[in-house]
Amino acid sequence: MITVLEGGVTTVPGFLAAGVRAGIKRRGLDMMLISSEDGPVAAAGVFTTNLVKGAPVLVTMKHVKNGELGAIIVNSGSANAYTGKRGLRDARQMTRLVARLLKLRTGDVAVASTGLIGLRLPMRRIETGIRAAAEELSNSREASLSAAKAIMTTDTKPKEIAIRVDLEDGTPVTISGMTKGAGMIRPNLQTATMLAFIVTDAVVSSAALKAALQNSTDQSFNMINIDNETSTSDMVLALANGRAKNRPITLKNQDKQFQAGLDYVLTELAWMIAKDAEGASHLIEVQIKNARNRKDARRAALAIAGSNLIKAAIFGRDPNYGRIIAALGYSGASFDPSKLSLELVSDRGRVDLVVRGKPKAKRAFKRARDIMRSKEIEIHADLAAGKACATAWGCDLTYDYVRINSKYTT
Amino acid sequence: MITVLEGGVTTVPGFLAAGVRAGIKRRGLDMMLISSEDGPVAAAGVFTTNLVKGAPVLVTMKHVKNGELGAIIVNSGSANAYTGKRGLRDARQMTRLVARLLKLRTGDVAVASTGLIGLRLPMRRIETGIRAAAEELSNSREASLSAAKAIMTTDTKPKEIAIRVDLEDGTPVTISGMTKGAGMIRPNLQTATMLAFIVTDAVVSSAALKAALQNSTDQSFNMINIDNETSTSDMVLALANGRAKNRPITLKNQDKQFQAGLDYVLTELAWMIAKDAEGASHLIEVQIKNARNRKDARRAALAIAGSNLIKAAIFGRDPNYGRIIAALGYSGASFDPSKLSLELVSDRGRVDLVVRGKPKAKRAFKRARDIMRSKEIEIHADLAAGKACATAWGCDLTYDYVRINSKYTT
Repeated sequence: MITVLEGGVTTVPGFLAAGVRAGIKRRGLDMMLISSEDGPVAAAGVFTTNLVKGAPVLVTMKHVKNGELGAIIVNSGSANAYTGKRGLRDARQMTRLVARLLKLRTGDVAVASTGLIGLRLPMRRIETGIRAAAEELSNSREASLSAAKAIMTTDTKPKEIAIRVDLEDGTPVTISGMTKGAGMIRPNLQTATMLAFIVTDAVVSSAALKAALQNSTDQSFNMINIDNETSTSDMVLALANGRAKNRPITLKNQDKQFQAGLDYVLTELAWMIAKDAEGASHLIEVQIKNARNRKDARRAALAIAGSNLIKAAIFGRDPNYGRIIAALGYSGASFDPSKLSLELVSDRGRVDLVVRGKPKAKRAFKRARDIMRSKEIEIHADLAAGKACATAWGCDLTYDYVRINSKYTT
Repeated sequence: MITVLEGGVTTVPGFLAAGVRAGIKRRGLDMMLISSEDGPVAAAGVFTTNLVKGAPVLVTMKHVKNGELGAIIVNSGSANAYTGKRGLRDARQMTRLVARLLKLRTGDVAVASTGLIGLRLPMRRIETGIRAAAEELSNSREASLSAAKAIMTTDTKPKEIAIRVDLEDGTPVTISGMTKGAGMIRPNLQTATMLAFIVTDAVVSSAALKAALQNSTDQSFNMINIDNETSTSDMVLALANGRAKNRPITLKNQDKQFQAGLDYVLTELAWMIAKDAEGASHLIEVQIKNARNRKDARRAALAIAGSNLIKAAIFGRDPNYGRIIAALGYSGASFDPSKLSLELVSDRGRVDLVVRGKPKAKRAFKRARDIMRSKEIEIHADLAAGKACATAWGCDLTYDYVRINSKYTT
């Protein structure tokens, strides 16, 4: 049983947060701090697979290696990526200052930055911001919301969630998190960096936390395909302080309820990102059923969610099943086209486009165009090749996407 | 030495062509026939990797297996893809009728179709068209041009080329070809099908022809990345009638000059497709230098040519090097970002954006914006990781792309 709670990261006992303005962005909060009242606790991270990694990613990957973190410092407005050795020094300096203020070791502090690539951080403002954030740390509802606001770049809304879930041993634990990352990007950003920070009071080893985090990420953030691009700065971090005193979750004693709770939190956060994609007029959910295996299901879902031609067709409310079939065909998934079924679903109803290899008559397409009047559209594909399923999210390709991404940055 | 000749497929002795109107498209020529005067000759094909293959692709793959073809019949306006067993029967019927009229075996005739997915072919019109084409077969310059016109769908121009090249043994041979395939697609097409038909008078075994054709395709058609989509109907066919009487080219006795000539023909045809991409305002050539190996070079070039964010930036004449670096980073190519150099080139000049890991100052970007006023822009990336190189072609992402691809088809 999963219960959704009011609030964000401060809902979990033992975690404090703050969001302040350091003056990096033109306006709004731009510096966020999360702190563990218990000092360093179990921690795990998942990082961008881009070969070019921002300095904060490199520093945090190193710091999380020993499985513990006590604080996370984040700035928006400048990504500190492609900034060479100076950038690494600046990222380390951020962790050093936080460590000094919160009485931690430098290696216990994670750092993340999001914004423009290739610019040096304004370190004076950053340092002033860090001091202000450390002073404002609080477990209040407002502190959590300010923190979620401070990591926003082109996001139009802060994105946070908190839930309670009963573990297999009956202990209730709280899991909460915040994220940022608009899929469609404003001119002054390079690629949409996705950041997410999760905290929980569960007792969980860092290895088990890492495995669970990777699982959840694979079916949530990794299934958003807005424009096929991978940023230099993506990062998902999770901290677990063990205050719930449940039977310890380890790699050998995993807990399905904990995994389900984490899946829920990350999937909701991923959905919020897709929904907030700039320039989009339709949110698209792709559900693949009966694929040969999970890999095939994921490939097929991501190919449809990432196809420019399908995205443009959905913008124009065109139930162009040929493009969906072509995308499934080049996705790498194995299936028999003559057994394929396609269905279109929204809150206005559902309609079959193809049933076991047979395209439906013209009437179905009229109905489909009406169904596509909804803002949220689901494409269901049944590959009839096995039992695996997967869900991916994307959005349509609009004039606004082109307008937003063609403006000068330099 | 490669000499470009006037004309297309009929420039090669022993090949006849015709382009006629069968009434499949709303207007214009829509049926094409190429015939070998010497009956079946050495032949090879390269086909779409899409799992969902159109009926003509399946039929032609089977017919070319024995290494010989005597004719190619093509219609535009309807792809005969996703048409089930009826579609297969129709495609076979087209080859059967051509075989009867030209006194060939059915298995010696190749068939290709391009146009709408999911519709049955209008077989009466097709059969009348085939008879008309067979009657009009000619070795004239006009016949070749009509044939090149008849395979067009959203192309704005026919695309053909002929060259002469001296083989290693000194024998001059002719290689010529035609292609179609606009990268950006009109509403009534699903994905842009790429078709290309090559003929030559060289003496070459079908196995050697297949190897040479695959090589050339890999560095020409396979390096066009307009929108990351692979059609159900792509096909490249080559026929060689041996009239030039050169020392036979075989897998063991390959001929570098023949390969160079074929490379030239296919690369020119690929370039014509990229240039004709609908809705594009800039043609983009990506040159990767000093990659670790050829695979890396190709990946890197295709990642840049296929990035929506880079394509949108180029539409807006924005020298956004951060997006190029991010695309290189997620391409899978291995390189050291601190050694990377990026350069922008057009007929208006050249400018460095990044030199060995160091981004240039603001002045360079002003210069870059001026360079981007040209219609054809080159992005040069030096990965400093080895000696391999690759070139890819693409075009920018424009409002017109979205407009064209969001119109109703159904």
